[in-house]
Amino acid sequence: MGRTSDAKERILSAAQTLIELRGYSALGVAEICKAAGVPKGSFYYFFDSKEELALAVIDEHWAEERSGWNRILRSDDPPLQRLRQLFEATEADQRAGQQSCGTVSGCLFGNLTLEMSNQTEALRERLQQIFEAQVGMVEKVITEARERGEATVADTHEAARSVVAQLEGQVLFAKLYNNTQHLDALWTNCLALLGATVPGRAEEDSLPSYS
Amino acid sequence: MGRTSDAKERILSAAQTLIELRGYSALGVAEICKAAGVPKGSFYYFFDSKEELALAVIDEHWAEERSGWNRILRSDDPPLQRLRQLFEATEADQRAGQQSCGTVSGCLFGNLTLEMSNQTEALRERLQQIFEAQVGMVEKVITEARERGEATVADTHEAARSVVAQLEGQVLFAKLYNNTQHLDALWTNCLALLGATVPGRAEEDSLPSYS
Repeated sequence: MGRTSDAKERILSAAQTLIELRGYSALGVAEICKAAGVPKGSFYYFFDSKEELALAVIDEHWAEERSGWNRILRSDDPPLQRLRQLFEATEADQRAGQQSCGTVSGCLFGNLTLEMSNQTEALRERLQQIFEAQVGMVEKVITEARERGEATVADTHEAARSVVAQLEGQVLFAKLYNNTQHLDALWTNCLALLGATVPGRAEEDSLPSYS
Repeated sequence: MGRTSDAKERILSAAQTLIELRGYSALGVAEICKAAGVPKGSFYYFFDSKEELALAVIDEHWAEERSGWNRILRSDDPPLQRLRQLFEATEADQRAGQQSCGTVSGCLFGNLTLEMSNQTEALRERLQQIFEAQVGMVEKVITEARERGEATVADTHEAARSVVAQLEGQVLFAKLYNNTQHLDALWTNCLALLGATVPGRAEEDSLPSYS
């Protein structure tokens, strides 16, 4: 094994890959250590349990994803275009994952929500916090769009949650069919859910043509 | 153990309950047999493997759910009202599950898609068939609504998939928050996704107020 500081990172990285590929329940600590190339004692030096490791994996993944979301959603582009870029970035991420491991692995947070949120309160709470943060970030952009007269939806919070729900639902289909093209529908559906129009754009961007 | 014919049903019933509560990977054959009250030899008399059991659980659950969907979606009510009834029935089912086991367990097919579809081809194919059937059933209703001038969406297949994706996404939130009220948004969102209006109904049913 390398330096202690490497070992923790290696465990986290191996665990994230394995959880994305096979879920949480299917994994054992021994397998994670083997993939990370560290002895089992090293695992328990850093983490009290597999659940504590999962929370660390979730936190690390969200720190990275949040930074990407902020870069896109806080840019100077028009608000609806930022949402479009978020969907395009999601599709690009899923495609990159598919190319590296052969299958679309989906959203780590969505996967763990359906697998684990009714079983451990610690995971449930952390996943709730992350989805609330995502909904809040999307809601800010919807509010901006509404102020510019580009969205007509009344309840921006519910609308933001519906956009994130549509994202999770289409990522589920992308995983089921191992095909990221299912994410193409996100932009048109988002416009429909927001009662949105994009000024100056061609008719195909108006709702709800799916063309 | 009871008669052989009981044993198979008991195994299927116990497996469905356990898979809904804890997923597929977390379960072992021994635990399923214990919950069913049958000896392990009895399991292998009926099923070659845990995967074969999971396929049987999926088939049995879909036979039941499909019958409920058909009863609602093929009724004589106006097409959009049938979709509304489908969402209400979904919420009632999730609420009943929550009352009997303490937590919203979500959609068995969505759960297994995110947990297992990238790991076993047999499960992936079966789940694809079920979601394709669901999308087809919803698409027929959307087509009827369009013929009546109550929906304006151009691509009825893509629209049906988006409605099912929204359903899966909101069920994910219902499970995450252990709260079936998240499913209340489905009707308004469905109208928005279909570019729909409901003739003769109050303004709150038009899109997309979320009120």
